[in-house]
Amino acid sequence: MFSNIFNLSNKNKEFYHSLKDVLGYKPKNLIYYERALTHKSIREVNDYGVVVNNERLEFLGDSVLDTVVADFLFNKFPSEDEGFLTNLRSKIVKRKHLDSLGAKLGLDILIKSKIRGDKIHSHVLGNALEALVGAIYLDRGYKYSKFFIIEILIKKHVNIDELITTEENFKSRLIEYVQREKVDLVFDTQDTTNKKGKFEAKVIINTEEKGKGIGNSKKEAEQNAAKDALKNIDQ
Amino acid sequence: MFSNIFNLSNKNKEFYHSLKDVLGYKPKNLIYYERALTHKSIREVNDYGVVVNNERLEFLGDSVLDTVVADFLFNKFPSEDEGFLTNLRSKIVKRKHLDSLGAKLGLDILIKSKIRGDKIHSHVLGNALEALVGAIYLDRGYKYSKFFIIEILIKKHVNIDELITTEENFKSRLIEYVQREKVDLVFDTQDTTNKKGKFEAKVIINTEEKGKGIGNSKKEAEQNAAKDALKNIDQ
Repeated sequence: MFSNIFNLSNKNKEFYHSLKDVLGYKPKNLIYYERALTHKSIREVNDYGVVVNNERLEFLGDSVLDTVVADFLFNKFPSEDEGFLTNLRSKIVKRKHLDSLGAKLGLDILIKSKIRGDKIHSHVLGNALEALVGAIYLDRGYKYSKFFIIEILIKKHVNIDELITTEENFKSRLIEYVQREKVDLVFDTQDTTNKKGKFEAKVIINTEEKGKGIGNSKKEAEQNAAKDALKNIDQ
Repeated sequence: MFSNIFNLSNKNKEFYHSLKDVLGYKPKNLIYYERALTHKSIREVNDYGVVVNNERLEFLGDSVLDTVVADFLFNKFPSEDEGFLTNLRSKIVKRKHLDSLGAKLGLDILIKSKIRGDKIHSHVLGNALEALVGAIYLDRGYKYSKFFIIEILIKKHVNIDELITTEENFKSRLIEYVQREKVDLVFDTQDTTNKKGKFEAKVIINTEEKGKGIGNSKKEAEQNAAKDALKNIDQ
């Protein structure tokens, strides 16, 4: 299974070298990386009649990425609670952020797809990045996955301090939605005796309750209610 | 940091031996395991004034568990798609199943809590199991976490074949809820032109829409709507 660089075709040599530049180490088994970087627009069927694309690798890579980022944040922030860690990790691994990381790594050049250039739907890159992590894990194990995610991905391309201070503003996103859809929005925010916080907010759209949230300030309760509502409405 | 077994107090020796029986290997640094098995009902503050409990370890263990189970299923089912893998993993790692695994491992004996016996809220065990995986990861790395999860947890205590055939019945769970809460439940299920399926179901509780779902059969659409509704209601 080991791909000896001397036995590779010129096309594969090129792929090998570009890959090595992205990964920061020598890949062993190219087949995993080819699979990871093949978009589902290219339909390939293997010897067992199974359609081959990168979605199984995405499944694997997605959780390897979650674990390594968890490990990194756990050690970097020894006195922060699990709420802080969960929140910061979700900012790092959210689809939109992974898309931009995929672009920074140059995966758009490596990816094999029927869709090209501007037409590459942005999530293709984030998904390919997850699948690439899955390929690294299969090819070289957890240790190399950790090296790639921490040393290459996070340390070179992620601005942790900036992510910490960026508050995702669910309330603004909800307001954009109601303006676009021309519907009525009301926040109904009251004191509460709930143990989780002092205030409870409800999002009411066209007289229908669409979300609710609790928080220690009115602002926090409304943010949480807006976040909940965004999950419940078609956008 | 290494806990030499000869230097331990009798109480700690007992803890060490019980732990070794559960883990299937010799733990090195007992402090991680003690932390993992301390419920938040016991409020401890460390030298930095930070409250110490197992929630940070739960955060870490949760994703290590996800990754190892993903790896295990990826290899066990080489021709199943990511939908199958995701679904099966979620059955393995869901809170209720982890609670029963925690009980099978005997974590109820090891756990340090102010709540005892019958009063132990069942999720305490599932949470402690996740935190224990976090402790293993910190103490002995990914390799031992994988050994523990696959060889001890999955192979001895998880019936994969049974989980595959168990369909989680969200509709029954929703019906149990409305009976308990004495509220009105209506499923409004219609044909749809939505690309994702032929039917669209809405769950209406006390005249308020609480969830919706799409499926290729009425049953599937209603299952999905019930699943969605369960997320949106306080249970």
